[in-house]
Amino acid sequence: MSQPLTFGMVGGGRDAFIGAVHRMAAQLDAQARFVAGALSSTPEKAVASGGDLGLAADRNYRTWEEMLDHESRRPPAERIDFVSIVTPNHAHFEPALAFVRAGFHVVLDKPMVLNSTQADELVAAVDKVGVVFGVTYNYTGYPMVKQAAAMVRDGAIGPVRKVFAHYRQGWLATRLESTGQKQAGWRTDPARAGAGAVGDIGSHAENLVSTITGLTLHSLCADVSTFVPGRAIDDDASVLLRFAGGAKGVLTCSQVCVGHENDLAIRVCGEKGTLSWRQEHPNHLEFTPMGAATRVLTRAGPDAGPAAAAATRIPSGHPEGFIEAFANVYRGVIEAVRAQREGRKPAGLATQFPTVRDGARGVRFVERVLESGRAGGRWLTLE
Amino acid sequence: MSQPLTFGMVGGGRDAFIGAVHRMAAQLDAQARFVAGALSSTPEKAVASGGDLGLAADRNYRTWEEMLDHESRRPPAERIDFVSIVTPNHAHFEPALAFVRAGFHVVLDKPMVLNSTQADELVAAVDKVGVVFGVTYNYTGYPMVKQAAAMVRDGAIGPVRKVFAHYRQGWLATRLESTGQKQAGWRTDPARAGAGAVGDIGSHAENLVSTITGLTLHSLCADVSTFVPGRAIDDDASVLLRFAGGAKGVLTCSQVCVGHENDLAIRVCGEKGTLSWRQEHPNHLEFTPMGAATRVLTRAGPDAGPAAAAATRIPSGHPEGFIEAFANVYRGVIEAVRAQREGRKPAGLATQFPTVRDGARGVRFVERVLESGRAGGRWLTLE
Amino acid sequence: MSQPLTFGMVGGGRDAFIGAVHRMAAQLDAQARFVAGALSSTPEKAVASGGDLGLAADRNYRTWEEMLDHESRRPPAERIDFVSIVTPNHAHFEPALAFVRAGFHVVLDKPMVLNSTQADELVAAVDKVGVVFGVTYNYTGYPMVKQAAAMVRDGAIGPVRKVFAHYRQGWLATRLESTGQKQAGWRTDPARAGAGAVGDIGSHAENLVSTITGLTLHSLCADVSTFVPGRAIDDDASVLLRFAGGAKGVLTCSQVCVGHENDLAIRVCGEKGTLSWRQEHPNHLEFTPMGAATRVLTRAGPDAGPAAAAATRIPSGHPEGFIEAFANVYRGVIEAVRAQREGRKPAGLATQFPTVRDGARGVRFVERVLESGRAGGRWLTLE
Amino acid sequence: MSQPLTFGMVGGGRDAFIGAVHRMAAQLDAQARFVAGALSSTPEKAVASGGDLGLAADRNYRTWEEMLDHESRRPPAERIDFVSIVTPNHAHFEPALAFVRAGFHVVLDKPMVLNSTQADELVAAVDKVGVVFGVTYNYTGYPMVKQAAAMVRDGAIGPVRKVFAHYRQGWLATRLESTGQKQAGWRTDPARAGAGAVGDIGSHAENLVSTITGLTLHSLCADVSTFVPGRAIDDDASVLLRFAGGAKGVLTCSQVCVGHENDLAIRVCGEKGTLSWRQEHPNHLEFTPMGAATRVLTRAGPDAGPAAAAATRIPSGHPEGFIEAFANVYRGVIEAVRAQREGRKPAGLATQFPTVRDGARGVRFVERVLESGRAGGRWLTLE
Repeated sequence: MSQPLTFGMVGGGRDAFIGAVHRMAAQLDAQARFVAGALSSTPEKAVASGGDLGLAADRNYRTWEEMLDHESRRPPAERIDFVSIVTPNHAHFEPALAFVRAGFHVVLDKPMVLNSTQADELVAAVDKVGVVFGVTYNYTGYPMVKQAAAMVRDGAIGPVRKVFAHYRQGWLATRLESTGQKQAGWRTDPARAGAGAVGDIGSHAENLVSTITGLTLHSLCADVSTFVPGRAIDDDASVLLRFAGGAKGVLTCSQVCVGHENDLAIRVCGEKGTLSWRQEHPNHLEFTPMGAATRVLTRAGPDAGPAAAAATRIPSGHPEGFIEAFANVYRGVIEAVRAQREGRKPAGLATQFPTVRDGARGVRFVERVLESGRAGGRWLTLE
Repeated sequence: MSQPLTFGMVGGGRDAFIGAVHRMAAQLDAQARFVAGALSSTPEKAVASGGDLGLAADRNYRTWEEMLDHESRRPPAERIDFVSIVTPNHAHFEPALAFVRAGFHVVLDKPMVLNSTQADELVAAVDKVGVVFGVTYNYTGYPMVKQAAAMVRDGAIGPVRKVFAHYRQGWLATRLESTGQKQAGWRTDPARAGAGAVGDIGSHAENLVSTITGLTLHSLCADVSTFVPGRAIDDDASVLLRFAGGAKGVLTCSQVCVGHENDLAIRVCGEKGTLSWRQEHPNHLEFTPMGAATRVLTRAGPDAGPAAAAATRIPSGHPEGFIEAFANVYRGVIEAVRAQREGRKPAGLATQFPTVRDGARGVRFVERVLESGRAGGRWLTLE
Repeated sequence: MSQPLTFGMVGGGRDAFIGAVHRMAAQLDAQARFVAGALSSTPEKAVASGGDLGLAADRNYRTWEEMLDHESRRPPAERIDFVSIVTPNHAHFEPALAFVRAGFHVVLDKPMVLNSTQADELVAAVDKVGVVFGVTYNYTGYPMVKQAAAMVRDGAIGPVRKVFAHYRQGWLATRLESTGQKQAGWRTDPARAGAGAVGDIGSHAENLVSTITGLTLHSLCADVSTFVPGRAIDDDASVLLRFAGGAKGVLTCSQVCVGHENDLAIRVCGEKGTLSWRQEHPNHLEFTPMGAATRVLTRAGPDAGPAAAAATRIPSGHPEGFIEAFANVYRGVIEAVRAQREGRKPAGLATQFPTVRDGARGVRFVERVLESGRAGGRWLTLE
Repeated sequence: MSQPLTFGMVGGGRDAFIGAVHRMAAQLDAQARFVAGALSSTPEKAVASGGDLGLAADRNYRTWEEMLDHESRRPPAERIDFVSIVTPNHAHFEPALAFVRAGFHVVLDKPMVLNSTQADELVAAVDKVGVVFGVTYNYTGYPMVKQAAAMVRDGAIGPVRKVFAHYRQGWLATRLESTGQKQAGWRTDPARAGAGAVGDIGSHAENLVSTITGLTLHSLCADVSTFVPGRAIDDDASVLLRFAGGAKGVLTCSQVCVGHENDLAIRVCGEKGTLSWRQEHPNHLEFTPMGAATRVLTRAGPDAGPAAAAATRIPSGHPEGFIEAFANVYRGVIEAVRAQREGRKPAGLATQFPTVRDGARGVRFVERVLESGRAGGRWLTLE
């Protein structure tokens, strides 16, 4: 077995939610070790957070700039192999670009950046420097999502006709941001989040559609809403989709659906069959071939294939969840880094994680949805 | 107990599907007796079908005109109390209007007529003559749909914000109409059906939304498709909805979703709670009040109310289905006829069945969806 | 189409539950007409109930003896074709035997009679006279139960190894019988019911096991309980089953499981596959063949066969329920009566309804379970 | 934050399944580090496995005896804090006893040992030495199991009347052990496993029943089977349970139920309510209070309490699975070790993990079930 890679983290300190998930996910397979961090935009809090987590004092940085500077100056074999950036959205672009340019591999949270200008710049930088760059559209890490994508690719349902995707939450059904709740605070602040429900969860749904179907979105028409009075950002959207080649779709996202926890789901109807998957019951994939009864596929069960099995750690029937899926994104990045170092062509998971291009496409999708919404629900094409 | 009413039927002979359902539904509670019919547009087939079903020879008519004529001339106490019209869509308007004008109560299948001009004329005739007129949007007959409507009306979920409705079938995923299948034949023929998926099933979804939420549709934007090559009519649509007062919605209907049998479902999210119901599991209604766990309500179980109980024949846990729901529409019509005769104000089920106004609203909805679709997905208001 | 048969009913008057279900079920397909009755053991109530239901005065009898006498003296073509006996358990045997001996076909509720001596006498009488005799183990009327039975018979799951059956209700979790509730009253009265949960619902589970697996029960060991203080009869039992040939099973029944409405279910594991069915979601049957994913079969959907289709009235996806399943028992009886009259060998549904032998086996099962329970849970063989 | 503890492992090398799960689970929260091992009973394989996993050469031991010896001689601050023993069942007792006697805290897989003599000796040793001793009845680590246990303890369902537990798998439906499959090999070998389905999975079900209900088993009656020809060990059992105080239960376990992956479930019916939980959908707990609709509780959702929340890492709706539940057992052990070191009274998770007493009770349960089975299904009391 190879040595674990080492990584640092930007953001993810005290009170953060997703940082801890990244650390569990990155280290689940003992293929990476968390060794450095600049865990908050407030230097004191950054250092205190790093202490909580047992970082060595000399790699417990006050700012990401400091981390970048010091790590760059360590001998290559002793610097972090990659950095995970898990700050609020508005603080993605600068550190990501800087680490890329300095030659570090990067894992970045979604939505990648605030606008497509930034996205294009980041893509260009990644292309130029050639680092591995993963974007944590973590839901695509679920084994049954990989299974679904493989089945579509292999023709199990024939050419896709119609896609239904939804992502419904209810936690913002009231004006939670006015209570001081940290997550609600930045996620509903246009300056820090860029977009609301569309950026936070609609972008996950877009990525799921794209990953599973492989279709290219041609145009869309969106009805974007802010239902909660006093809120400064969108909290709901419904989007009609038209794909190149004639497939169509509907994508809805909402954070005001009382009682919904994390109801992300997709249904893909092709000429010869249908696939259906729900994030809250992620270990199953329903598959109905034309003229046959619905089959309930499980991770490594019969009728499922190598795509799911390769992303699975334990036997079917033993549920895997969110953290394991998240960890699959990291496995992909880690394997891609190793492949690059060893001059191998990446294969398997190393080819399946969402990249800077998925990130850029997602940013463009969010932009266009909001633009269509502002125009009262006009059809817009995606170049 | 009152004497059962008597009824005749137009359409519904040999090879028909829905006619037999109407007869079972109408007679399930022994409150109506099937005594007359003009069961096919082909006179010989009409008479043969009536013979199959045991109609007396003198009330087994060759045409609906003959039935109307003969029944009108019978003594009032001996003529049919109401007529059920279950022909293909294009053959609804004429007999419906004629029976109404002759003073017969009418039950008519949906979509009610082919266009809003006909619909308006029928509404005017019903208003003028004052007969009872039911339209078999049968899904609103389910007890848990009545429960949901009562809960929305009583404020259980607060003002509605977002409605999700879908109706997915797969039986027309191939060009079944080219095989000689009778149902597929007329339902995909523009001349006989008027509209395809939008009229056949989208109209049911519209009625379900309207019945449960009580909202008035203000405008819509539709993407209407014909996915199966060679088909002459729509087989799929996705519709964005905006209601008076600010609620929004998404309604999708499709007959090309392989593997879907009769997947009609609705989810209504209000400021204070959410309701969710699926036709294929009709005996349950999920209710999530703000800040509480989801409750699974059953027909006459705890936490459900009188609206569901009044439409229920047997204890919860003993499933009721499609026929029983259909029969509830008939119970409503029958009770309304009796109330009218006895000079009573209708109450309970007699006020809950879909009327000529529901039918007219449905026709207008179908028209507008198709118009929006033809315009490439333009927003249109409903006057 | 043949003329509908006519039938009379013993029991099932005002306040009764199951009588109305029998009338709906018997007449659902317009193949039988309810024309006579002795609807209560209280003559005045009997007559009042018959009036409610529109019985002709001369066939609205005060007692079943009167009905038997009068109907027997009518000309054969004008007497009832069969009688449905829907009284409490203790009032099954006498009228059933008498009608059989008089040559009437009979439909009788379960448990058939109070003990196996009565059961044997009834079997002998039916054999001697040769009438059609159906016992309303109505759950076996569900299409997917017929599908399951056909699949076991056809070897789809190989030889059966293990059977799990349960029937859980919660309505007797408190001492409801002390409140004057009529159903609870007789069902918990040893004199009128004979047995409690074991007779009322355990017998249904036994019949379901027998019908689907075709296995012969060899021995059993039962733990029988009365959980509610003050109750005079069993309200819960757990039974280990051993079948001839080596298969084994577990059958549990309880009426004190709070929150359970009518949770009857069966799971049959064979050497080559498993079947699973639940009464509260009766339109689906789960089938897992060895080495393949679970398939969800629907009534007339793909991968289901003629057994289910023949017992189905409407397309899959349009739910059928309890009444429709009950009606299938009546269809079987009616078709058997017709076959007998016309000298035809019965086929299809006419061979599938539960007969006097199912009834006798059920009585013996109940006896043995209670006997084992009284002995503290001893293994007993069934001869 | 405290420093992570360090641990060693006995067993769990190449080809093992559960060892890797233990390592992921122990380290998920970064509260423990895997630093030593004797990973196989074959010294060469042990060392090779340790190399795979990056163990330092001087702590990559050839045998557990060597590990015990060397670690014991390291300075206290540098020796492993605890040892995880994940060998096949027959190789549990010796190392467990030895490490306990040497003062190491221990985590041991279940069933703990092969017989109650060994179990009693181990209990005595743990009591004498005072180490922390956890047994990985990992299913009790699920948040909703903790929630259920807390609700029963708090009276939410009143005194328990009836418990239904089952654990069904299908992977041994054929004679897999004859194919050379390693897991099947030792698990069906009486010498190495001690018991078959009863020990492997029945013991999990027993622990789940005991953990959630808090009831003490008084007596049992078991029907134990070996369905697969040629198999040397039990592969199926059905057990009737009687608890002190009058509650009753049924526990079934089987490894020949084709199509079942890991179907462990429990349903507890009390005088005032019912709880139901299924391992394959572990993030939900159904709760039906008397006279109210069923509620679907989620990990940290409304109506759930602190017991679930304390065992949860991420928000409800983001599924947690098997590994996370397993990790909760480790968290409990780790917190108990820390509490002991710091002289604190253990609280929360540190009081909830299964201990040597759970292990001993489980061994006794397995013994009695097999004894009852050998006696043809006789009732036996548990002292």
